[in-house]
Amino acid sequence: MIDLSSLDGLRRACGQLPKPDRPAIAAVQARQAVLTKPPGSLGRLEELVAWLAGWQRRAMPRLDRVEILVFAGNHGVTRHGISPYPPEVTAQMVGNFSAGGAAINQLATAAGAALRVVPLHLEMATRDFTEAPAMDTAGFLEAVRTGHDAVQAGTDLLCLGEMGIGNTTAAAAMAAGLQGGDAVRWAGRGTGLDDAGLRRKQAVIEAGLTHHRAVLGDPLQVARCLGGFELAALLGAAVAARHAGIPILLDGFVCTAAVAPLAHLEAGGLDHTQLAHVSAEAGHRALAGALGLAPLLDLGLRLGEASGAALAVPILRAAVACHVGMASFGEAGITDRG
Amino acid sequence: MIDLSSLDGLRRACGQLPKPDRPAIAAVQARQAVLTKPPGSLGRLEELVAWLAGWQRRAMPRLDRVEILVFAGNHGVTRHGISPYPPEVTAQMVGNFSAGGAAINQLATAAGAALRVVPLHLEMATRDFTEAPAMDTAGFLEAVRTGHDAVQAGTDLLCLGEMGIGNTTAAAAMAAGLQGGDAVRWAGRGTGLDDAGLRRKQAVIEAGLTHHRAVLGDPLQVARCLGGFELAALLGAAVAARHAGIPILLDGFVCTAAVAPLAHLEAGGLDHTQLAHVSAEAGHRALAGALGLAPLLDLGLRLGEASGAALAVPILRAAVACHVGMASFGEAGITDRG
Repeated sequence: MIDLSSLDGLRRACGQLPKPDRPAIAAVQARQAVLTKPPGSLGRLEELVAWLAGWQRRAMPRLDRVEILVFAGNHGVTRHGISPYPPEVTAQMVGNFSAGGAAINQLATAAGAALRVVPLHLEMATRDFTEAPAMDTAGFLEAVRTGHDAVQAGTDLLCLGEMGIGNTTAAAAMAAGLQGGDAVRWAGRGTGLDDAGLRRKQAVIEAGLTHHRAVLGDPLQVARCLGGFELAALLGAAVAARHAGIPILLDGFVCTAAVAPLAHLEAGGLDHTQLAHVSAEAGHRALAGALGLAPLLDLGLRLGEASGAALAVPILRAAVACHVGMASFGEAGITDRG
Repeated sequence: MIDLSSLDGLRRACGQLPKPDRPAIAAVQARQAVLTKPPGSLGRLEELVAWLAGWQRRAMPRLDRVEILVFAGNHGVTRHGISPYPPEVTAQMVGNFSAGGAAINQLATAAGAALRVVPLHLEMATRDFTEAPAMDTAGFLEAVRTGHDAVQAGTDLLCLGEMGIGNTTAAAAMAAGLQGGDAVRWAGRGTGLDDAGLRRKQAVIEAGLTHHRAVLGDPLQVARCLGGFELAALLGAAVAARHAGIPILLDGFVCTAAVAPLAHLEAGGLDHTQLAHVSAEAGHRALAGALGLAPLLDLGLRLGEASGAALAVPILRAAVACHVGMASFGEAGITDRG
């Protein structure tokens, strides 16, 4: 039913997004009103339960099947020296994910979540966006479809993340293309650039924005010309999850920039997502604010790999546990307020 | 070795606090430098591992035994109508804890933590602090000792919390007594006071500060005259944990105010604590800031019961899991930065 054979098909899929289930949300709110706590005293946990219920379309949301999807890709712009790590590290880290040695492996286990890593032909980087679109239309749509197809029906919660040397440069370029503002506003130090590297990164982003200035009004063209394979896959996964009734935890700056076109194509296009954390990468806080995303965590992470998303899963589990397990005032024989 | 038979004995115990283990911290930092991530990219998680190691005095910290202690007490000032709930709810909620129906029961299970609730003779409220010290010296010291003795050797992490109708009034009075500022600055709506109730609460706090103005320079007298049994127990538990090498997660406003005397009695007196969250209760953010405590979570909770502390346990578990389980660059065969 989702036609991903053309940019127009994708555009239509992004403009006909399902809404949350109001009766499920109302059922959650009615139950919360009688649980043994002052009204509203669990704060954001109460909102999260209603959010899960609305997108899962269940009055009692569950988190039995939590999945973490990490998309990996390589970037032509790395030739400009915009990362302290060489591009082969992307494939090496995918190997580390497979071997269980990365941060996300430990965090997935701690979160009780399944981890799946999807490399997008790491042997072929995107083109250097300072001189050509990062992807041609077919390559972009293929990556979107890869992300779309990676989402499995029956998932209760999807955590999205990425790995790709150079991809904070792509993300910053996308943020600038979508939100406006110059490279200085959006470019950060990524995995740890020094001052000279940061200046190179800013120059690369400015060059990309200039080269592609004719398409900056079209969010999908911004994603194609300035993004990357793994960013396109994240967009595809976000669209698929929306249509399948699967709520999403977004990870950091790259992940947020990758799905930002959804918010530009349709009001409420990111309503099925929560921002798991605000990263230490410069620009993430501003991008989150511009998109109306309030982070659950603010712990100075800047790793990617869906690490922040996995870290937030226990908060959702705790919220659901309270909702499902708490007694009502009547059940507990407790005097309610006058 | 800790003499709790007199205020002076307690004062000495609060002034001879152990420091963290520097070699354990150095070992953590050395290992973090070679794990497969950009340096510092796990942000606060890296700091938390070093903090746990320093107080547990182990190069590889562990969280096998996490305990949640909830102290409960009643307050004479409730006669002034400073809570929307009647004081019998304190005992009723203790019953709810025993029956497993409260939020903290669900959160403890979700956190993999043991929960112990310690009521402090709920049949006998503290005195109304607008006209007398909340506790006589013997009663205060007995409550401190109850808290001290509740801490079990071998605990890897202690979460502290409380339950007591009226106790945000006691906490606000203590915060004002310790930090300065008037009642309007520190009084919040607690479990949900309306405007008239909030004005009554402010007046009660001002009356208490006036009545006890002669002792406001002495943090332990502030705790005795304006605090409460459960707050005194929290202070005792915090002292005991420091001497036993047990790191602490503090819960909300009441918990923070209760242990604040430690920071006033000795520089670094709260270094073995992390503030699990900043609550929605007015005054908590300011008190945390004044004490130099940076909250791990900011989710609008205002329930007490150690709920915020329990909610932060998985963050520490995740931090330890990364530290223990991640591969090094060498082990994973990954190219480190140039």
